[in-house]
Amino acid sequence: MTETNEKAVIEKVVSELLKRGIEIDSKQTPNSLGGQKMNDFLSSTSTVPEFVGTREIGDTIGMVIPSVDPLILDKLHVTKKYPVLGILSARSGAGPHIMAMDEAVKQTNMEVVDIELPRDTKGGAGHGSLIIVGGDDPSDARQAIRVALDNLSRTFGDVYNSPAGHLELQFTARASGACHYAFNAPEGKAYGLICGAPSGIGIVMADTAVKTAGVNVLSIASPAHGTSFSNEGMVHISGESGAVRQAVMAGREVGLKLLTELGEKPVNDFPSYIK
Amino acid sequence: MTETNEKAVIEKVVSELLKRGIEIDSKQTPNSLGGQKMNDFLSSTSTVPEFVGTREIGDTIGMVIPSVDPLILDKLHVTKKYPVLGILSARSGAGPHIMAMDEAVKQTNMEVVDIELPRDTKGGAGHGSLIIVGGDDPSDARQAIRVALDNLSRTFGDVYNSPAGHLELQFTARASGACHYAFNAPEGKAYGLICGAPSGIGIVMADTAVKTAGVNVLSIASPAHGTSFSNEGMVHISGESGAVRQAVMAGREVGLKLLTELGEKPVNDFPSYIK
Amino acid sequence: MTETNEKAVIEKVVSELLKRGIEIDSKQTPNSLGGQKMNDFLSSTSTVPEFVGTREIGDTIGMVIPSVDPLILDKLHVTKKYPVLGILSARSGAGPHIMAMDEAVKQTNMEVVDIELPRDTKGGAGHGSLIIVGGDDPSDARQAIRVALDNLSRTFGDVYNSPAGHLELQFTARASGACHYAFNAPEGKAYGLICGAPSGIGIVMADTAVKTAGVNVLSIASPAHGTSFSNEGMVHISGESGAVRQAVMAGREVGLKLLTELGEKPVNDFPSYIK
Repeated sequence: MTETNEKAVIEKVVSELLKRGIEIDSKQTPNSLGGQKMNDFLSSTSTVPEFVGTREIGDTIGMVIPSVDPLILDKLHVTKKYPVLGILSARSGAGPHIMAMDEAVKQTNMEVVDIELPRDTKGGAGHGSLIIVGGDDPSDARQAIRVALDNLSRTFGDVYNSPAGHLELQFTARASGACHYAFNAPEGKAYGLICGAPSGIGIVMADTAVKTAGVNVLSIASPAHGTSFSNEGMVHISGESGAVRQAVMAGREVGLKLLTELGEKPVNDFPSYIK
Repeated sequence: MTETNEKAVIEKVVSELLKRGIEIDSKQTPNSLGGQKMNDFLSSTSTVPEFVGTREIGDTIGMVIPSVDPLILDKLHVTKKYPVLGILSARSGAGPHIMAMDEAVKQTNMEVVDIELPRDTKGGAGHGSLIIVGGDDPSDARQAIRVALDNLSRTFGDVYNSPAGHLELQFTARASGACHYAFNAPEGKAYGLICGAPSGIGIVMADTAVKTAGVNVLSIASPAHGTSFSNEGMVHISGESGAVRQAVMAGREVGLKLLTELGEKPVNDFPSYIK
Repeated sequence: MTETNEKAVIEKVVSELLKRGIEIDSKQTPNSLGGQKMNDFLSSTSTVPEFVGTREIGDTIGMVIPSVDPLILDKLHVTKKYPVLGILSARSGAGPHIMAMDEAVKQTNMEVVDIELPRDTKGGAGHGSLIIVGGDDPSDARQAIRVALDNLSRTFGDVYNSPAGHLELQFTARASGACHYAFNAPEGKAYGLICGAPSGIGIVMADTAVKTAGVNVLSIASPAHGTSFSNEGMVHISGESGAVRQAVMAGREVGLKLLTELGEKPVNDFPSYIK
């Protein structure tokens, strides 16, 4: 069999395997936080009026209920009962979605009324998310969900995945309602999130970050505290904008080195936004 | 092509595949709720007297302890201390197993004494299950476990999986002890379960379902309420049989459309039973 | 090569791959507890002073913070505030890491100040772990972490994995601080852990074990009690050394038979140490 023949056979075998469903697996849990490429596969033939859009990253879906049923509203676990609900829901990613919604509530009149963190990520070490915003105007709700979906390619920029774990860094110069709801961040002040998985890596990142710059430590989350039993260590920090950014970057540097010790260099799916 | 050539080609193909990263397991998590084909691989050579049977769907195993050790019974988390225990345990599936056991307790004198929902499904978005029934007669216990195992091919009928998530619908015209224990369903009345993952889909399904027909909303479960941090939104409903069925079917319709927006049409492993 | 030949080759390759599947898969998340081969891939070029070492089994990393930041120490969830922290963190494995750390605290002056169990194992049924020890001497902390890492090849010896679940057995003739912290084991006495997944298997193992020998039942853990919603049933036992060992071995025997009923014989990655 010639070299050319071999190549042809390999190609055929691969495509045969793909046909037999092995492609599904190769998308399954490529890394710890579900590092899939951004892709808006919104179908124009959708007949569900609640549907707003999706993003492939994190298996994210955005929806709006223009007038929620009173029986449902009564049983939903929301902090305030608005007639219009916007919903952002994902299999993988909590920080990125909360930061994206933080931007969305800044730009609209919607208010965060529920953030819940399933222990998901499709076999990874972290969380998925369910975020509900409430308001009085359906078009405002749709706008909020659209803004959140569009921000995901930014807020996933400092999520780094490897087969062994992941890192997540977030930063905003001015925290709004979503960061306040989820992380108790003081609104209007700079906020930073420094997270590593497996969780011990996040603890060392936190220590390094806080030693680097003078910031306030809001809280430390770990598998049994402030998470849904995810395998993450993280610190929530607040303070002066430059100091918070500097701390976040220092945490990222040490985290990348430590996670690399577990076998492979972690990679992000979108360009880093914290610099 | 000679035998030697074939071996060489196989070796090359394997290493090519490994390079391409296809080694990620084709058996692992084909879909969100572990959609495996039904197959009773009970081994007749088993020497464990407690063993009753297995089903491949959900990696389910059924067992009976004919006379439980008093020290164990004392520490088990059961609501009533019977000497005979029937155990149904699975990696994937909670609703299907609870509905199957609901049928089993109708047909026997066993009583549900424990239902616990691990956050499992082998990387999927939902639960596994541990269900314990108690009674006084070992042969009655074995019968209950057998009935439950046999009902799984029915109760998995409206579980729909896709790579991005899953839907689950359940309906009974007359709820019994398992539905009451797990979901607080009034016994003897019609009960319905409407569930979607990622969780936001389940919230929209719930809203649509309840708007469709006049039913009682027992509760809404979401990642932080009434689940074990699964990525599911679900509503438990009760009421008149026709209305409950109609609501469940309306929830299913919108759920299928929404989950399809996340890439692939969800499929069930067994024929739908709710119609 | 003719078209027919190609088809034949493809068929052979596919079946060869399927045959090799388990092997190939066993590098990814082949089984329920992440059964990877032991391999110390410590990089000598690491520039993070906190880094001590890794083990491929369980994606385990060991680190030491020689002088923890006071703001971090204040927010960490530790039972006692030492300036020096040793950290053992893993994606897969809780019992093995706790038993390994039990040995480490026997050999050093470090004290267990935190054990947290994430619901992890990369899609498997069990836990990962975060274990923090505190002390006053950084070199003592490094020694503790090194001892713990080195003990993993022993304490993973009775962890048995199959595609459907896993079993874990642990035994020590003299429990120390880590077993006491995590499982409430009386220090200085023999302690045994008998665990099976899916959880129902662990309940039957527990019953068999306790019927076999006269031991004290410390507690039973199950998906909703004493675990982080893992799909495990387990019993913690204490008492006379020979009796505890005998009970553990009896639990192992029945567990192997039951888990095998779910399709494949469970295998351990390291030699069994309980005999």
